[in-house]
Amino acid sequence: MGEWVYIKDIAAYEGKQVTIKGWLYNSTDKGKVQFLLLRDGTGVVQGVVSRKDVSSQVFSDAQHLTQESSVIVTGQVRADKRAPGGYELLVNNLQTVQLTQDYPITPKEHGIAFLMENRHLWLRSSRQHAILRIRAEVVKAIRDWLDSHGFVNVDTPILTPSSCEDSTTLFGTDYFGEQAYLTQSGQLYNEATIGAFGKVYCFGPTFRAEKSKTRRHLTEFWMVEPEMAYVDLEGCMEVEEQFVSYIVQTVLQNRAVELEALDRDTSRLEKVVPPFPRITYDEAVELLNKKGLAFEWGNDFGAPHETVIGESFEKPVFIHHYPTAVKAFYMEEDPSRPEVCLSVDLLAAEGYGEIIGGGQRTASYELLERRIKEHNLPRQAYEWYLDLRRYGSVPHSGFGLGVERTVTWICRIHHIRETIAFPRMLDRIYP
Amino acid sequence: MGEWVYIKDIAAYEGKQVTIKGWLYNSTDKGKVQFLLLRDGTGVVQGVVSRKDVSSQVFSDAQHLTQESSVIVTGQVRADKRAPGGYELLVNNLQTVQLTQDYPITPKEHGIAFLMENRHLWLRSSRQHAILRIRAEVVKAIRDWLDSHGFVNVDTPILTPSSCEDSTTLFGTDYFGEQAYLTQSGQLYNEATIGAFGKVYCFGPTFRAEKSKTRRHLTEFWMVEPEMAYVDLEGCMEVEEQFVSYIVQTVLQNRAVELEALDRDTSRLEKVVPPFPRITYDEAVELLNKKGLAFEWGNDFGAPHETVIGESFEKPVFIHHYPTAVKAFYMEEDPSRPEVCLSVDLLAAEGYGEIIGGGQRTASYELLERRIKEHNLPRQAYEWYLDLRRYGSVPHSGFGLGVERTVTWICRIHHIRETIAFPRMLDRIYP
Repeated sequence: MGEWVYIKDIAAYEGKQVTIKGWLYNSTDKGKVQFLLLRDGTGVVQGVVSRKDVSSQVFSDAQHLTQESSVIVTGQVRADKRAPGGYELLVNNLQTVQLTQDYPITPKEHGIAFLMENRHLWLRSSRQHAILRIRAEVVKAIRDWLDSHGFVNVDTPILTPSSCEDSTTLFGTDYFGEQAYLTQSGQLYNEATIGAFGKVYCFGPTFRAEKSKTRRHLTEFWMVEPEMAYVDLEGCMEVEEQFVSYIVQTVLQNRAVELEALDRDTSRLEKVVPPFPRITYDEAVELLNKKGLAFEWGNDFGAPHETVIGESFEKPVFIHHYPTAVKAFYMEEDPSRPEVCLSVDLLAAEGYGEIIGGGQRTASYELLERRIKEHNLPRQAYEWYLDLRRYGSVPHSGFGLGVERTVTWICRIHHIRETIAFPRMLDRIYP
Repeated sequence: MGEWVYIKDIAAYEGKQVTIKGWLYNSTDKGKVQFLLLRDGTGVVQGVVSRKDVSSQVFSDAQHLTQESSVIVTGQVRADKRAPGGYELLVNNLQTVQLTQDYPITPKEHGIAFLMENRHLWLRSSRQHAILRIRAEVVKAIRDWLDSHGFVNVDTPILTPSSCEDSTTLFGTDYFGEQAYLTQSGQLYNEATIGAFGKVYCFGPTFRAEKSKTRRHLTEFWMVEPEMAYVDLEGCMEVEEQFVSYIVQTVLQNRAVELEALDRDTSRLEKVVPPFPRITYDEAVELLNKKGLAFEWGNDFGAPHETVIGESFEKPVFIHHYPTAVKAFYMEEDPSRPEVCLSVDLLAAEGYGEIIGGGQRTASYELLERRIKEHNLPRQAYEWYLDLRRYGSVPHSGFGLGVERTVTWICRIHHIRETIAFPRMLDRIYP
């Protein structure tokens, strides 16, 4: 028996005897030789089983091995330029762990409803594997960048007594007799923790009970939210472009194999370096009108508008100074023009729409108090949030980046549902 | 004006003019000199304001600065062995951003109920700052170790149609007309994703609607759950001891200042290196009886038992082979003795109780099916989970480590509520 190694490390074992523990992905019967495509979660390698090299029992086992059977294979690693990955395994022993019968996802085409119902198995296919591997890289890049730029990770609560964004899209729960809600954002809590740590981020699941069924919406999605004391709108944009560029460039560097598996044209991603273009909301409206889209000042952009604006630039584009009325209650007003606020959204390139929302928050107690009234928010639930303006208030900014939208863009795929292992949507909570 | 720097970086600016943006932590009036203890979230530095060096306006502002006022201070960095941190700031300018009135948390003693009600402000105090800084280090160490040991981070859902651990402690929510629950563990989903990635981990919030009010329980807590294909109970323990040792040693190395702020005796933490002692459940029962605690074979350990067992060892201790009846339905039976299972808990040192639960999972379809029946679980909700034993089932193991319990132990503090920014407990969901 050879040492148990993972397929990703196989190049280091050329000429040596190794053991692979995994599953049969596919196979080809060439009479005297069986070609077994083996996967173990870290990669795929071709196992070559020759009748002359193995016992008749092992050869027969190889011959009868079915798709997705679990199998332990021992053999010698050999360099072969024609093999996928550059190496193959000359098999001399094989142990079937479980012989799988009638694996439901065959190499033929399946409908999306069927695949979603079998998501727990669909994840084993090469495309889904590549997307989720890129997702993990994005998550790691997010944390690495923030951790190495002085941001302290402070987890904010999921169960909250009040809402942050939109009270019409809340999931509720009974909290020992009180009404509680699943968080839509950790931002308000981040605004408290910057008082202790200066620069913070929370990174966790957030929830929107959205009744819309679009390819850009999940009811449960992951969001990273950095927040910074003593940073204004301009400083916020500078952080955002550094941050997003780092994420994209890290994926390009570390996940070339997966991007290739997705047929991703990487030339567009290579352009994602600072600085990003910055336009005002006013300029964005002008741009839309120039492109022939009727759009009235004061409205919020919808997906078609975001697509048109995003496609007008090579890189992701900032849109700042939205109308105060379309943004959340906590946005800082532009002091010289209170009908617009110091908000900024970042639209991904290639028409992929908003991936970041953020901006400068209200520092003034009086303004915030007025806003809470205007928005009919329950004052008592926001007492602690008002405290942050009572005791050492500072100018501060922050933003939220949606992981799944970012992965959708980086992978250049059509539907957001493939960017999370077990998507939650209007019509789906299983498996 | 000097360059804006963070206090943690101040040593690199000796002799230079810098600007600090932060808050007044404390101050001392010595007549001709004001000593200002300034904090900016990254550290604390003493600002020295001499009447002879500054305008009378600046001196007067310094004199009237109140606790937790937000302030921007410019001055020259000077090495001074007597100063906290080894450096102080010779102030030449000062701008009050907000003059705080009546900050509620004064240096005097406050009751815990008051502090919890003002948790959003309490976080600014040095002890809370130290604990949460250590928490962030623990979180980073967890991810760094797993990412560098071949585990792929795959996020598992929070909203689930079925329960994993204990159906009596579920938070429910209405999911567009269907009943859904907040997750108690991502493990079942991890068992699916190992089929795609070999070794995985999920890391997120988990929920228990526990009616018990103890110093070890939160209703919302963070858990990291690694899961490994083709790994048995023994392999699982080897991973656990490497993992926990790395976390503890990393905190010792990177958070010495914070451990000192908590008066933590670090000699006990230094001993947390592999291997950890391993005892069976049978041996643990014997140990309890020998120590004079009446305990009958077949029961689960409570907090007092865990404390006694844990205190009998210098390092964290594994207890394996629990009675099958006290563990979850998915545990693998010991084939030679089915009344015990291949489970393992890890008890922290110093009597801090369980920090990890885990073990080898059932690989057999027939056994799992029987268990689902015996536990009266809704078969339909577990169809996908049964699929994992139909299609390429493999021996596999995994575990869950609770972040807050681990931080409680590492910090050696009394109550778990201080290890998370905004704790959720039976009687608390505000702020």
